[in-house]
Amino acid sequence: PKAMCSGKLQTGLLVAGYFIYLLVGAAVFQALERTAEKQEKMAAAQMKEAFLQNFTHLTVAEMEQFMKVRASPNGVYPVGNESQIEESNWDFSNSFFFAGTVVSTIGYGTLRPKTAGGQIFCVFFALFGIPLNIVFLHRVGTSSRAHLLKIKFLTLLFFLATGILVFLCLPSLFFQKTEGWSYSEGIYFAFITLSTIGFGDYVVGKQPDRNYFSYYRTLVAIWILFGLAWIALLFNLLTTVLEDTEKIIVKDIHQIGKV
Amino acid sequence: PKAMCSGKLQTGLLVAGYFIYLLVGAAVFQALERTAEKQEKMAAAQMKEAFLQNFTHLTVAEMEQFMKVRASPNGVYPVGNESQIEESNWDFSNSFFFAGTVVSTIGYGTLRPKTAGGQIFCVFFALFGIPLNIVFLHRVGTSSRAHLLKIKFLTLLFFLATGILVFLCLPSLFFQKTEGWSYSEGIYFAFITLSTIGFGDYVVGKQPDRNYFSYYRTLVAIWILFGLAWIALLFNLLTTVLEDTEKIIVKDIHQIGKV
Ligand SMILES: [K+]
Ligand SMILES: [K+]
Repeated sequence: PKAMCSGKLQTGLLVAGYFIYLLVGAAVFQALERTAEKQEKMAAAQMKEAFLQNFTHLTVAEMEQFMKVRASPNGVYPVGNESQIEESNWDFSNSFFFAGTVVSTIGYGTLRPKTAGGQIFCVFFALFGIPLNIVFLHRVGTSSRAHLLKIKFLTLLFFLATGILVFLCLPSLFFQKTEGWSYSEGIYFAFITLSTIGFGDYVVGKQPDRNYFSYYRTLVAIWILFGLAWIALLFNLLTTVLEDTEKIIVKDIHQIGKV
Repeated sequence: PKAMCSGKLQTGLLVAGYFIYLLVGAAVFQALERTAEKQEKMAAAQMKEAFLQNFTHLTVAEMEQFMKVRASPNGVYPVGNESQIEESNWDFSNSFFFAGTVVSTIGYGTLRPKTAGGQIFCVFFALFGIPLNIVFLHRVGTSSRAHLLKIKFLTLLFFLATGILVFLCLPSLFFQKTEGWSYSEGIYFAFITLSTIGFGDYVVGKQPDRNYFSYYRTLVAIWILFGLAWIALLFNLLTTVLEDTEKIIVKDIHQIGKV
């Protein structure tokens, strides 16, 4: 019973440490980036106004519409009315999401630090955050290659099929509804995210013309957390299969050499 | 001597397999994406022409200059003369680079598949490419945690300091010269790349107004390859340190409970 209690304490400590690390990181990123972002936005707004005054033969609405389509995804060109300058990309929810993309190494890049301070902090935050995330995922998935190898073949097949269904196929159906993507786009987004490639071409909850339900992002975060643990197992398994295949090929070549 | 020969054969097989995998992948991505890219570029050029005809009170040069600043990084809005429509983002060199960012899970996202075919192929290419890359990096770095733990503390410190110098500090100096970044931007880029976060805000060899020497990208690729192996060791080490620290804290809490 003492060992069990010890294990629970250890897990509790880890979960608390992990979330505190993310929360503190999010707060620091926000503090470092918000001022610079505001200055940048105000400069962009001034530039825009000057541009619109020079080209008064265009109506503001026409130019606005055109720029909305062509606006850079850096979010520098302000596409709304002036009140939107006050809205920050680095609100706490986004900051926390950003901290999560750093420690998981997904790194979508839709939000990224632009100040020297933010960039240097990002390096140190990732340096300790990535190993912390690995330890956390180990605990979530009890990821151990030795453990995996003891499992029977049928159990393994079941694990694979269930994982593909739960972490790729069902989320893809879900994203079809919530994001309006095609089914293959949903599979692509799910795999690119869980494999931590994270191109940033598809990101959830980012379309301004869509209404997302309130705990949408939380649900996605839970999916990512368990999905990362699952895919780590999958990649571990495939790595073992590749290494074994290589050994067999080398053995066969030697056998052929003998004959 | 037979074991040594077997080891060499195994490594040779792995290196050949790894590069053939990347080369074939690059060719498939190119085949799948090039046609769609050209169609997209032509549509964008037509849109641009129509826009410029409607707003004839603006000189073409003025609008061109403005759009060059505001052009979206998707590369959809054509910023040069018409001959540049012929130039593809999916030339073989870029395609190979893209395949590398997929298997390493860096995923800058500056180039990404847009067709359904390209996206689905990307999923399967990553599914086997990521484990292959892990096996390859294992071989490059002889990465083994058990091995690492046997090394003496001083050797470890030396390994850390040398790695930081060789993989972060010196490359940053180098990027200052070749890319015109600040020193901290260079460190940020180096770490974000080697940790495989890969935001895509800084990417080498992408500034059109800079002259890069001919084997620049090859040199960068070698740096990334060995850097990834080094940082895997670093993260392994930090993961172990974190897990040990956790155990010590739990032990201390139990000790306090007893007193
Ligand atoms: K990534
Ligand atoms: K990325």
